[in-house]
Amino acid sequence: MANPTDPGYDREAVRAVLDRARTEGRTSLTAPEGKALADAYGLPVPGEALARDADEAVALAVELGLPVVAKIVSPDILHKTEAGGVEVGLTSPQEVKAAYQRIVANARAYDPDARIDGVQLQQQIGAGLEVLVGATTDPTFGKIVVFGLGGVLVEVLKDVAFRLAPVTRADALSQIGGIKAAEVLDGVRGGAAVDRDRLADLLVRLSDLVTDFPEIAEADLNPVFATADDAIAADLRFVLDFAPAQRPKQFDRDEILGAMNRIFTPRSIAIIGASNETGKIGNSVIRNIVDGGYAGEVYPINPKSDEVYGRTAYKSIGDVPGDVDVAVFAVPAKFVAATLEEAGRKGVAGAILIPSGFAETGEQELQDEVLAVARRHNVRILGPNIYGYYYTPQKLSATFCTPYDVAGGTALTSQSGGIGMAILGYSRSTSTGVSAIVGVGNKADIDEDDLLTFFGQDDNTNAIAMHLEDLKDGRAFVEAAREVVPRKPVIVLKAGRTSAGARAAGSHTGALAGDDKVYDDILRQAGVVRAPGLNELLEFGRALPVLPAPTGENVVIITGAGGSGVLLSDAVIDNGMSLYEIPPDLDEAFRAFIPPFGAAGNPVDITGGEPPSTYEKTIRLGLEDPRIHALILGYWHTIVTPPMVFAELVADVVAQARAAGIDKPVVASLSGDTEVEAASAHLFQHGVVAYPYTTEKPVQVLGAKYRWARAAGLL
Amino acid sequence: MANPTDPGYDREAVRAVLDRARTEGRTSLTAPEGKALADAYGLPVPGEALARDADEAVALAVELGLPVVAKIVSPDILHKTEAGGVEVGLTSPQEVKAAYQRIVANARAYDPDARIDGVQLQQQIGAGLEVLVGATTDPTFGKIVVFGLGGVLVEVLKDVAFRLAPVTRADALSQIGGIKAAEVLDGVRGGAAVDRDRLADLLVRLSDLVTDFPEIAEADLNPVFATADDAIAADLRFVLDFAPAQRPKQFDRDEILGAMNRIFTPRSIAIIGASNETGKIGNSVIRNIVDGGYAGEVYPINPKSDEVYGRTAYKSIGDVPGDVDVAVFAVPAKFVAATLEEAGRKGVAGAILIPSGFAETGEQELQDEVLAVARRHNVRILGPNIYGYYYTPQKLSATFCTPYDVAGGTALTSQSGGIGMAILGYSRSTSTGVSAIVGVGNKADIDEDDLLTFFGQDDNTNAIAMHLEDLKDGRAFVEAAREVVPRKPVIVLKAGRTSAGARAAGSHTGALAGDDKVYDDILRQAGVVRAPGLNELLEFGRALPVLPAPTGENVVIITGAGGSGVLLSDAVIDNGMSLYEIPPDLDEAFRAFIPPFGAAGNPVDITGGEPPSTYEKTIRLGLEDPRIHALILGYWHTIVTPPMVFAELVADVVAQARAAGIDKPVVASLSGDTEVEAASAHLFQHGVVAYPYTTEKPVQVLGAKYRWARAAGLL
Repeated sequence: MANPTDPGYDREAVRAVLDRARTEGRTSLTAPEGKALADAYGLPVPGEALARDADEAVALAVELGLPVVAKIVSPDILHKTEAGGVEVGLTSPQEVKAAYQRIVANARAYDPDARIDGVQLQQQIGAGLEVLVGATTDPTFGKIVVFGLGGVLVEVLKDVAFRLAPVTRADALSQIGGIKAAEVLDGVRGGAAVDRDRLADLLVRLSDLVTDFPEIAEADLNPVFATADDAIAADLRFVLDFAPAQRPKQFDRDEILGAMNRIFTPRSIAIIGASNETGKIGNSVIRNIVDGGYAGEVYPINPKSDEVYGRTAYKSIGDVPGDVDVAVFAVPAKFVAATLEEAGRKGVAGAILIPSGFAETGEQELQDEVLAVARRHNVRILGPNIYGYYYTPQKLSATFCTPYDVAGGTALTSQSGGIGMAILGYSRSTSTGVSAIVGVGNKADIDEDDLLTFFGQDDNTNAIAMHLEDLKDGRAFVEAAREVVPRKPVIVLKAGRTSAGARAAGSHTGALAGDDKVYDDILRQAGVVRAPGLNELLEFGRALPVLPAPTGENVVIITGAGGSGVLLSDAVIDNGMSLYEIPPDLDEAFRAFIPPFGAAGNPVDITGGEPPSTYEKTIRLGLEDPRIHALILGYWHTIVTPPMVFAELVADVVAQARAAGIDKPVVASLSGDTEVEAASAHLFQHGVVAYPYTTEKPVQVLGAKYRWARAAGLL
Repeated sequence: MANPTDPGYDREAVRAVLDRARTEGRTSLTAPEGKALADAYGLPVPGEALARDADEAVALAVELGLPVVAKIVSPDILHKTEAGGVEVGLTSPQEVKAAYQRIVANARAYDPDARIDGVQLQQQIGAGLEVLVGATTDPTFGKIVVFGLGGVLVEVLKDVAFRLAPVTRADALSQIGGIKAAEVLDGVRGGAAVDRDRLADLLVRLSDLVTDFPEIAEADLNPVFATADDAIAADLRFVLDFAPAQRPKQFDRDEILGAMNRIFTPRSIAIIGASNETGKIGNSVIRNIVDGGYAGEVYPINPKSDEVYGRTAYKSIGDVPGDVDVAVFAVPAKFVAATLEEAGRKGVAGAILIPSGFAETGEQELQDEVLAVARRHNVRILGPNIYGYYYTPQKLSATFCTPYDVAGGTALTSQSGGIGMAILGYSRSTSTGVSAIVGVGNKADIDEDDLLTFFGQDDNTNAIAMHLEDLKDGRAFVEAAREVVPRKPVIVLKAGRTSAGARAAGSHTGALAGDDKVYDDILRQAGVVRAPGLNELLEFGRALPVLPAPTGENVVIITGAGGSGVLLSDAVIDNGMSLYEIPPDLDEAFRAFIPPFGAAGNPVDITGGEPPSTYEKTIRLGLEDPRIHALILGYWHTIVTPPMVFAELVADVVAQARAAGIDKPVVASLSGDTEVEAASAHLFQHGVVAYPYTTEKPVQVLGAKYRWARAAGLL
């Protein structure tokens, strides 16, 4: 639907044009049809008018705005220029009058019999900054709008920004300001700034047009000439598609949560294909569920055994005496449809399809058949082709991998089994507190937006980290993410960023390759924190829940090593933060604690040989002064302040501050011999995100927290 | 000195202009003076000539090339335009003739008494692509040249490239091709390509001019109009500086190596301030040297003890019976000058100045005094304000930190003590084989170019990794690096990337140069691999010596996890490599080993459930096919192929290939549970650079190896 501030669009006019094109089997519009659309939605195009005599020409030209172009209008003259019937660059009423007379005289001389309707005057544009405004239909996100500078250079540098349509005025302004060369819009070398509001208005109107009429597949306003008080499209192009791709089935929030709550907090689980034979997936799954500590009912389903792993087994899920919330499938692909039919009749909420051998090996039809069974019985499918899922609050390890029991606030999902295994190993190695690890595999049904909806309202989860290669429905994902982001960070590793990566994604899961910039801009628009690589996904997932949210942009570095201070400063800028310019009174206060040759300012360089008390006093000051919003600590291993002494004192000072109601993000970089590893771990356990041997990582994590806090509207 | 292909520069003409400016106390040149310099060095400027009558005007205009601009030349007419004395855009002989006559007539009408010398005709430029060519004097590197596209947009995007002057034609061509928007130079939207050779020629000539005449501090040719067959500077600007900064003292290669060999392989070491008191630096130093296993003579110097740490102590270094190569100073700053005087008389080659309290605390004079003592006695100083240095081939740990004894090929240096400690801890934690760790601290004397010269020829060192915050003499560093890079990688972490201070600059070029981009471009020109952060410095330093050099650009990914394949592909592009397009016969050969639903192509996706033999066969094929130059492996933890099984088989296959003379770089990303950590370590020990839980790091290391191999001329 169009914006609430709908400025009186003429939908009927657009409807008429599109219906005619549809009737005539056309997928493009003529220039007059394009102009009709532009007029209907107020997209500014050069003004034009027909003058029937020289005086009228002058009046109209003044009304349109000089300079103007004048062209003969005659049904009998096809080649206007040849007939001397075109004049450009008419800048004064005198010139317009003279041009009118010349053009008519030329036309009469060219063809004395020609019928002459008059002279068309058109606003002459070409001054101002050339920009590009467009809309297209993205296979993942649907209607999106694009903005960029025009011209040759920008074409090479591809400096454009995308937004999901419909855009609000605020979206459009952020989009316009989001191009790299945005400074050009403010005027350079003394030139006037363009009117960003006019451009934003144009983007909003175009976005409304393509939203109201989905059959407009593409729209190009290129170039648009932007000046200090106007933005006029010199050329329009529309491409139509009367049979657009359908979005996947939508579930409403209650439907999603109803199913997800039963899947993540099931009272009972059936394992289809549970087995006593070690090495079989059906054996690993029941073993992990039982050994992992799951407290609900566990029903092995196996037609050939009476008991599996100490539990009574049933020939069919239909034989199970009580209700079953979740059925985990550990049978070959070819048996899934039939057993799912039985599970559906039993009323399970979720089918966890571990087996491979579906779309990923070309068996799309088999997968479609299974989905159809599930839809018939209102069963939601996770998978197929997955390792399963973990949910630590229920001590649930429904997977053929190993159990995981370090409960905490991070929910992680992965589209790929390999990445899932990396999540598991890394989490175990770093003792990351996890609420859930979920494989989504082929995403025949449940996908990231369902999981976002669940984790977004799950009190056991306070950050969500997702690996994905594609989105089945980008629009649904954005809607889910927008709803969640104000409460908790959503971190996304989108694989296939580069065209080579996108090609590999294509061969892996049949994912559609698109321009990564579209993903980048639209995920950002949705408030998602994008992880550049796997390590960052894992690290952000681990660290973001540990840090409190900053309440302002004033970042201060306190360091015992000047060398670390320089690198930490680099990292602050690299990660989109800025160093607080410490005011004189605060500078004075820091100086009171540090040697005379130490450097106050920011970084606060306490110098290398200082005792614990210097770290303690300066860090306490940094925490207590309300003008500072986040601290980055640089530690240098010395005999005077050994690593664990530093770690304990920082943990204490931070704990004291938190007890006093001061909860600022604190991160630390530890330089030293191997003892700094244990010191970093101690700090991490006490709410200070700390790493040894790197100045980049702690600042990168803080930067990610800031990106989220800004998107969540906390700053 | 100018290029060997010196194209007959008129140095006398330049000398005369500069001498006049010097005499007149000017630091800038007039337009005619600037043109004189341009003419002397063949910098193309618009042609001009004086016509004394209309026919001569026509002849000259044709000779200069139309279009031309015509201007009255009269000592009595100051305001030429007001006098009707200027006409532009004269495109035909007829127009030139008419213009001549009009201009002279206008001038006579304007001032009947004016003396009229004739009409100046000047080639009118403005067509073509606007580019910027300049030169400036960088405080670190001295004369540098700059190239960039001109115009408003590029000014905003700062798309420029720098090179150290003098540039060769090849340097200049790489510089021109090195801007981001280089594609524009090749013509866009059907436009003609500019003549890169002409632009390169211009850069070479300008670079020769500023090299021959160091007092030309800055030169701006902006804009230069580049066309398909020409490049003409529309405007010239020169800034002079007759008192340029002096470069630090230069040592020749023999002098450097003479001293460095004695410092790194000393027969004897004296410790000034050696102490029996635990906790004192003079105690830690002697303890580390002795306990570290150093086999040479150790002489404690302590006026109050007869014996220190079991060795005979001497009151003064002068009392030591034998020769002393190195004196390590562990006394307060104020005692350094006097004790160094004695060490100098004793004939030491190197003074290792651990004490702080010199320039870093504002005591520049004290540091200068110490340097003067050293220079007088021909002693080289390391430091002051350092942790000391390690050289494992001599089991030498001349430091107050702890000994380090894992010998290997990497030499690491740091300007900061904190970073030095991170080097030590990280090396120990990862068992990195190290030849040396050296603190350079305040760099009163020995700096990175001295160390490069030594490590470059040191058979115990096969990669050099340096942390630096500045270079005392960037030009000497570049010269040293250029000499070393063909044999071994030089990796640099340049701290302070983003905190480039505002620089007083009199020109556009000067302003552009106040930027980290200068370091970036010139280090790259020198063949240095730049590490973006501390972690990469450590990781490249550790891993590059482990990998053999690639002999070609064809990179292939073999992966058991499709999801890793996508991320590895992204990383390949991010790190400046490209995926080999596998030809049909090789594709067929890979397909023979993998399941039908696996994906050949590149990545080769062997799929997740495969046994060790599938990894083995595909990796062996990748190693043995000569068209493939580097392998990236993606491992997915399964029961069928557990982590250590994978690690051992890869190590075996690689070892067999190496035994057969096939030595290709192989890196691996391991996804799985914590067992992948031990598996990665095993691979690393066997020459395969492997990491758990990251797809980025192994590819980043391979990319660094490729950057070096390209710089070394191996590809």
